[in-house]
This record gives sequence, structure tokens and C-alpha cells, in this order.
Amino acid sequence: MNILSLPGIPLVQPGDNLVQIILDGVQAAGLSLQSGDVLVVTSKIISKAEGRLVRLDAVEPGEEAHKLAEEVNKDPRIVELILQESHAISRQARNVLVTQHRLGFISANAGIDQSNVPQSGEYVLLLPLDPDATARHIREQLRAQTGADVGIVVSDSHGRPFRVGTVGVAIGVAGLPAVLDLRGQPDLFGRELHISMQGYGDMIASTAQLVSGEGAEGRPVTLVRGLPYPRSDGTARDLLRAPENDLYR
Amino acid sequence: MNILSLPGIPLVQPGDNLVQIILDGVQAAGLSLQSGDVLVVTSKIISKAEGRLVRLDAVEPGEEAHKLAEEVNKDPRIVELILQESHAISRQARNVLVTQHRLGFISANAGIDQSNVPQSGEYVLLLPLDPDATARHIREQLRAQTGADVGIVVSDSHGRPFRVGTVGVAIGVAGLPAVLDLRGQPDLFGRELHISMQGYGDMIASTAQLVSGEGAEGRPVTLVRGLPYPRSDGTARDLLRAPENDLYR
Repeated sequence: MNILSLPGIPLVQPGDNLVQIILDGVQAAGLSLQSGDVLVVTSKIISKAEGRLVRLDAVEPGEEAHKLAEEVNKDPRIVELILQESHAISRQARNVLVTQHRLGFISANAGIDQSNVPQSGEYVLLLPLDPDATARHIREQLRAQTGADVGIVVSDSHGRPFRVGTVGVAIGVAGLPAVLDLRGQPDLFGRELHISMQGYGDMIASTAQLVSGEGAEGRPVTLVRGLPYPRSDGTARDLLRAPENDLYR
Repeated sequence: MNILSLPGIPLVQPGDNLVQIILDGVQAAGLSLQSGDVLVVTSKIISKAEGRLVRLDAVEPGEEAHKLAEEVNKDPRIVELILQESHAISRQARNVLVTQHRLGFISANAGIDQSNVPQSGEYVLLLPLDPDATARHIREQLRAQTGADVGIVVSDSHGRPFRVGTVGVAIGVAGLPAVLDLRGQPDLFGRELHISMQGYGDMIASTAQLVSGEGAEGRPVTLVRGLPYPRSDGTARDLLRAPENDLYR
């Protein structure tokens, strides 16, 4: 398996054509897309192309945001945006606000990003509107333009309970399974596999993050070649644990 | 970055020399080790080499194990082993027992494995005694025999709160950081990076798991070439979140 962060991806602006930017990056790497390739695209450049930058000055915090901002010691305008982007609060503490995002997952600060945003402090970046749909769109456009049947993962970084440090997660997928279900497959001794559901999209996102790096916004698209994944139409929602199966809600 | 699961690794037996087995695998791949390579070794083959197989018939469940086994609907002998391998119970429910392992992390069933074990049902496999120490030993032996300065990750599979499917985690490391601390590095616009601690060892373990596969015990060693990691003497304990910083204990 070969992992390559594509060179030459420019800073993305609202309205940019990500499909063309990806194709240019593949060409800049001296490659062409092949069926079976996987492209991992950071949520950040999708947000930027979608114009999900918000000017903080234009945010009017409501009463709940003011109260919560005081409790957790955050900017009330950012808390207002977090609440707008979330279905529910999972945990709060000083400097920490963990919510269930409207996209379903549980994460800190609703994934609102203040790094690698021009004029930071005045602007923040919200997560993409519908990363599964964007992944499908990119996949279809790439197929139309190159003939290659590729998988797409839209990646983000999440902290997690129990363990230090962020890891890559998939918040959108197309053309591959988000969860790889190995149930029923025999192990080497004919017994059913004990561990049988893999967080496949998340592991692909983590792989890309090893080479793209948090600071390297110049490398937001990673090509994974040689991963023998089953063709399937997954959704990142397959990675969301149902509350009734979650002992840590 | 290039990821290759080494071919030709035999089924490991108690007392086997893993360093020689790894060197044979590298040679079988037509390669030789280079400084900067990372080898990801599954905990399972380390456990096997250490003779961590336990015959269930020889396990005498105590009173606590009997009571808990009834509550969670598990074999009391396995519950006895889980308790012996753990410091504390984190959560319990029908068919689920999540504990804080003696190695520090929180995981299901204390990592006790019944798959890919000969005569399953009669034998189970405990996690390695000290995976950090084993990683250091393998690293030093490889350096002594080949001159190459390589990083080692001992990998396991963990489920997690919120999300479906297991992902790779590092339970032992040597020669590389388990957590990559990017704090203080500027982003593209000169602001400090927002997300600044990466679960580096876990992401390396997840990368290897994409190609080794749960069922493929014939591929328990993965070579990662071309990852530009900082040389450092990490420990997998760096990945353990302190309870006071964990809102989900």
C-alpha cells in the first residue's frame, strides 16, 4: 500500500472546484487516478470551498450561549456557533465543550476550527454541510472525468475519551465501507473472528493524517493506492454508535 | 510512505525468537531494514512468543468472578482472567465488561483473545507482559544485528465510545513518540495550531491494521517506510489520558 499526500494543492477559496484541484494534484504528482485508489480529503478544504467561513463579528450570541460561555470560559460567539451546529451537549467543563454534532458524531467544539483560517480570531470555519454527499459528488465527478472508480474519505481530527491525542476519523465516505464487517469470517483455526467490525474509514483517515500533518494545509489531499477494499456504498453514519449500545454517553 | 505486511511469518510458538522471525520476513519481502523504518508488530504474536496462552481448565474462578460472570453473562473463568489482568472495572453490561487494564488503558475484556488461538474455547491468550519493554528489546536487537535505527509499535485493536468498529492502538512503542506534540508550531497564517497533540502511535497501528487484517495472522508484522517521524524514546503510556482530564470515566 502506498500513501502519498498530493503536492501543489493551493489554498482553497469559496467556490473553488475541488474535483479540478484534486486532478491537478494527481497530475502534479506525476500520476493518474486508477480504479481502486482512495482519496482522503480533509474536511477543512471542503468547508472552505463551501464557504463555511463565519465572521465572528456577525454572530449574535443568544442567552443560552452567553450562560454556557461563562461556564466553560469560551467566546460566547463561538459557543453560539457550537450550539447551532449541535443537537445536544455531551460534556462541559472549563475550556471544554463536547457536543453531539448535527452530523451525528460526538466531538469537541462541534469541529469549529480557528487554525489555518486567514485573519484568525475574526473568522472561524464550520464543518462541511453534508460530507457524505460531497464525497459522493467528488467520486462521481472523478469517474466521469477519468473513468477511474475511486473511494473517497472526508477526514477530520477528533480527540477521544481515555486516550491522549487526536486521530483521524471519517466524517464522509463514498465508494467504500465506513465500517468493515468481518463477522462470520473464520479465523486461522476455523473459529469465528472475535473482533469483527473494523472502523475502516477512521483507520484510512488516520493513515492519511500521518503524512498530511495538521499544519500542512498545503497537503490536504492524500492518495492511498493498493488498499484492497471491497466496493460498497458506505456512509460515515455507519461509524456512529447507537446511544443504546454506548456505555459512555 | 509505503506500507507492507511482511510475507512468510510463521505461526509463532512460545519461546520463538521474534527478532529472527522479523528479519526473515524482511528478507522474504526482498528488502533489508533501513534507519527510519517503523515495524508494527501485533500484540498477539508477542503474547504467543511469551507463552501467554492460558488453559481455561486450569483457571479457578473466585467469588467475585462468579458473581460478575453471572451479571454479564460470560464464562466465569474468562472473567477471572479479566479481573486478574485489570486494575478496575470501568463499565459492565450484558455480554460487555470494560476494564482498566494493568497496562493502563481502558478496553473490553482486558484484551483477552479467543480468536486465532489453537484449540479455541480451551485456551485464551493474554496481552504481553510489558509491550514497551518488548518494543525496546526488538529495536535494540534489530540495531545490533543490522545497524538500522528503526521504530517499533506494538499494536492491538480497541473498540471505543461513540463510534462503531475497532481501530488500531499502540500498546508499546520504542524509538518514536507515542504522542506527537505539535504545540507551539505555527499554522499557515502564523497562529498557533488549534489541534496540537496527535495520537501518533495509534495512527501508525491503524495504518498497519488496514493491510494486516484481523483474520490474517500470517501477516502480523508490517513495515512502514518513509514516515518522517522524530527520533524519540516514547512509551505507550504517553497515550493514556489522566483520569482528571477525562470527562468520560
